[in-house]
Amino acid sequence: MATIADLIETRFGLATEAGADRPAEGNLETLLGHRSHRRYCDAPVSDADLEVLLSAGFSAPAKSDLQQAAVVVVRDPAKRAAIADLIPSMDWLRTCPVFMVFCADSRRIRKICTLRGKTFGNDHLDAVLNGAVDTGLVMGFFIQAAQAMGLGCCPISVVRNHIEAIAELLELPPHVFPVAGMSLGWPAETGYVSTRLPLSVFVHQDSYDDSTLEADVDAYDRRRDARYSIPPEKHRDTDSFGRVNFYGWSEDKARQVSHRERDQLARFLKAQGFNLD
Amino acid sequence: MATIADLIETRFGLATEAGADRPAEGNLETLLGHRSHRRYCDAPVSDADLEVLLSAGFSAPAKSDLQQAAVVVVRDPAKRAAIADLIPSMDWLRTCPVFMVFCADSRRIRKICTLRGKTFGNDHLDAVLNGAVDTGLVMGFFIQAAQAMGLGCCPISVVRNHIEAIAELLELPPHVFPVAGMSLGWPAETGYVSTRLPLSVFVHQDSYDDSTLEADVDAYDRRRDARYSIPPEKHRDTDSFGRVNFYGWSEDKARQVSHRERDQLARFLKAQGFNLD
Repeated sequence: MATIADLIETRFGLATEAGADRPAEGNLETLLGHRSHRRYCDAPVSDADLEVLLSAGFSAPAKSDLQQAAVVVVRDPAKRAAIADLIPSMDWLRTCPVFMVFCADSRRIRKICTLRGKTFGNDHLDAVLNGAVDTGLVMGFFIQAAQAMGLGCCPISVVRNHIEAIAELLELPPHVFPVAGMSLGWPAETGYVSTRLPLSVFVHQDSYDDSTLEADVDAYDRRRDARYSIPPEKHRDTDSFGRVNFYGWSEDKARQVSHRERDQLARFLKAQGFNLD
Repeated sequence: MATIADLIETRFGLATEAGADRPAEGNLETLLGHRSHRRYCDAPVSDADLEVLLSAGFSAPAKSDLQQAAVVVVRDPAKRAAIADLIPSMDWLRTCPVFMVFCADSRRIRKICTLRGKTFGNDHLDAVLNGAVDTGLVMGFFIQAAQAMGLGCCPISVVRNHIEAIAELLELPPHVFPVAGMSLGWPAETGYVSTRLPLSVFVHQDSYDDSTLEADVDAYDRRRDARYSIPPEKHRDTDSFGRVNFYGWSEDKARQVSHRERDQLARFLKAQGFNLD
């Protein structure tokens, strides 16, 4: 039977003894075997199932118990279509059974201060970060719950490329901002395990040390390529950057982030009332 | 046998039909029953177990597959003591079996750009948000893995109250910043379920609508108080705010956030090389 060590090897590309004595089952199997799903069957997700998933999501730990996250479930066909129109590269957003937008919410605690006659004392950049991290935790729990119920989902950060339009569509008030969209449904395909850089790249001992990054990335590029080689028609921006002999993950990602996007975030957050100092 | 609906009622305080047909077991039970743990047995956490947990954490979905998170495991007793000295209110940080700091990492992708001869085109505020959300997702997966193995952990955002000192201790280079600490060990106590506002406060349909917030918060305060009444010696800032007849969650949280903290974040992030525009 497959072990947790096998799952770690699949994800991170390197053999390990860790988890060799544990069968690949239960929560650990779900976590280590995580797959995003972008294609769904037509079957709807029931309101009761969605309530269970969202309940699991909002069971995540929250910074100082302040509970600074929110979600907008987008059911109105006109709003769904408007969002899908903004993101034509993701055609499944038009038809996925459930689409929602997870938001950071610094409004609630500020309203509670007003209700209790106190002055909110933390109108600075950390209010943005608190809400964003709480929302990431909620999404992490939500994604796990979806997998546990056999559902599939995919977080969609590209909603932030259109953050002003989407906030207006969802009528987000001051001090609330979109962090990521989320599509949800019953998976039509198995999905695939997204491989990761070796764990040693992420995990540092006592001090941050990335002195071996170049060699680690080169080896990772080769391992990924051996499993799935990015076909020439998917090479980005060959007009600007030409063709290269070996087109790996790092070449692809460097090309991707060389294009400026989302530079409206600071402007948008200021318009939503945040102080970014 | 308890059902998922029972767990939702415990967490959110209101009876529901959702999950009434599902036994409280498996991943959903772990998610909905999540408890943070701050007290641990002396037994160490093995390196192999920690590797499994971190592998599960870094299996979380990552924005555009850019993998912008990192963790520093703090084993050096001098560094552990220095961090514990900064946070005297959390005495368990001095002795918890494992202490680590989860960080947002925008450095790796910038270095990869350099390695591949590309110019990083996204030196703006969204680079901060991307790393923070990815790190929140990693922490969400890590926490679930810890629970699955019977371990307990607690995310500690208060490390950001001392973000400059902790970044220096951990030798964090430009474009890396602490998001939260995390303590880990074998739980010495059961822990408790942190109750939440009703799900309807978090979940909006098509448009954000918090028109019932005041009534929802009042009812939540009363429900929490019926379960656990905050004792008078724990009422905050009675010198400034005096005594109130009813001291609930919202009174406590309003007092807490009326005190300014973490206003050094923007200064720190700029010093770490981030552009906050």
